Amino acid sequence: MNKVTRRQILGSLGVSASVGLFSGCDGTLEASNEPEPKKIPTWRYVRLEPKAVASEAYRIMPKGGCMYGLVGSIIDALALVVGEPYRTFPVEMMKYGAGGVGGCGSLCGTLNGGAAMIGLLVADSKRRNNLITELFAWYESSELPVFRPQNAAKDEEMPKTVAGSVLCHISVGRWCKESGSDVMSPEMHERCSRLTADVTAKTVELLNRNLDPACTFTGLSAETKSCVSCHGQRELRDSMGTMNCGACHKLPKKHP
Amino acid sequence: MNKVTRRQILGSLGVSASVGLFSGCDGTLEASNEPEPKKIPTWRYVRLEPKAVASEAYRIMPKGGCMYGLVGSIIDALALVVGEPYRTFPVEMMKYGAGGVGGCGSLCGTLNGGAAMIGLLVADSKRRNNLITELFAWYESSELPVFRPQNAAKDEEMPKTVAGSVLCHISVGRWCKESGSDVMSPEMHERCSRLTADVTAKTVELLNRNLDPACTFTGLSAETKSCVSCHGQRELRDSMGTMNCGACHKLPKKHP
Repeated sequence: MNKVTRRQILGSLGVSASVGLFSGCDGTLEASNEPEPKKIPTWRYVRLEPKAVASEAYRIMPKGGCMYGLVGSIIDALALVVGEPYRTFPVEMMKYGAGGVGGCGSLCGTLNGGAAMIGLLVADSKRRNNLITELFAWYESSELPVFRPQNAAKDEEMPKTVAGSVLCHISVGRWCKESGSDVMSPEMHERCSRLTADVTAKTVELLNRNLDPACTFTGLSAETKSCVSCHGQRELRDSMGTMNCGACHKLPKKHP
Repeated sequence: MNKVTRRQILGSLGVSASVGLFSGCDGTLEASNEPEPKKIPTWRYVRLEPKAVASEAYRIMPKGGCMYGLVGSIIDALALVVGEPYRTFPVEMMKYGAGGVGGCGSLCGTLNGGAAMIGLLVADSKRRNNLITELFAWYESSELPVFRPQNAAKDEEMPKTVAGSVLCHISVGRWCKESGSDVMSPEMHERCSRLTADVTAKTVELLNRNLDPACTFTGLSAETKSCVSCHGQRELRDSMGTMNCGACHKLPKKHP
């Protein structure tokens, strides 16, 4: 293995030597394919109880948003049982996902968080995508929220809607239209807290199921499967993705 | 501070005692607002050189996708200078963002990765959203990709397009239509590798600028600003988000 200087590696990554962090370094480093070898911690998953983790997600969601609520509740539960590396996972970073990432209304933060946890805990790419696909298809087609908090003051019924889309902009928009609430109302925030609990429970259910190597996942809805069977990765290959097509597209009259 | 048993806390989070991980534990724990106190590592940002980190993002993108490429290149650069906690950050988890998260075509993985890094490194919520807003607005309106790799075999010109949207489905679709490539072609993959480099450079540029407490950010495009000034959080409050409206909506003829 060749010896290369730390300065050479830093130079290739554009790190300025002026940061002055190298006193005491002997200036040499083992070269490898990656810039520097890393310790690989074990992100071991143990079975959790979906309803209980969902309640915790509901509780902490107002502190940092939907993505933070989902990720924080699952990481905290695993930190209690497994300890490190979960205890020092930077949960706070997940505040970025609120309101469909920085408030822009793109991917719902609960789904971004659920997919991030699946990314952390499921190494096999095919299986990882299977879990994400079931989570997203379930979200698009389910009447939500169904979670009811135990807090007496908030334990009232709430309108439920089928989002029809994984996008925050559409999901929030449909619920607000149905409920007559505006997008900044306390009612909308309560709806998104409950939704965070629901998506947390579903994510934990999927991670539990995935502990069985022979488990199966439901896949895309029949409608989306029909569209992507031609437009997806096989025939026409002219469309990227598996989001519910009907959220934005209508079939033209002369569609084959 | 009250003493509560570990079993009580685990029970509230739905962790099954049957996992049998508690031999040697004395069964007591300090109670706090959070389930268990955490060590808070310091995620300190130091100035990086955008072009050099972008080249690294381009190099590693094929190993794990667009979100992984962006996050991996920034984390690796900071791991070299700062060391921990960057060296043990679970970069592999970011493979979940490829193809707009699990291949579903929602938020472009480069933007999800850029926003995640901003989430990790910028604690103030207003400032964090300012960085994300500029990153997303720049992506929506810029002719990309502009990065050209130094590898001679791939150093050819490439069609550039304005995505007009932060969504992978639209961004990839427009580039494929313009270039005549299909969504699974090597050309599309090369385009997304170069795009990963571009968004990495822009993210690093924003993080560098943010080191100056008096810096400013450009904000939304004039078009989006005009739409959300009525539909957003102030007047009508009937629309969640700041994505480019024109990607999906046309102004009705009788719009005020």
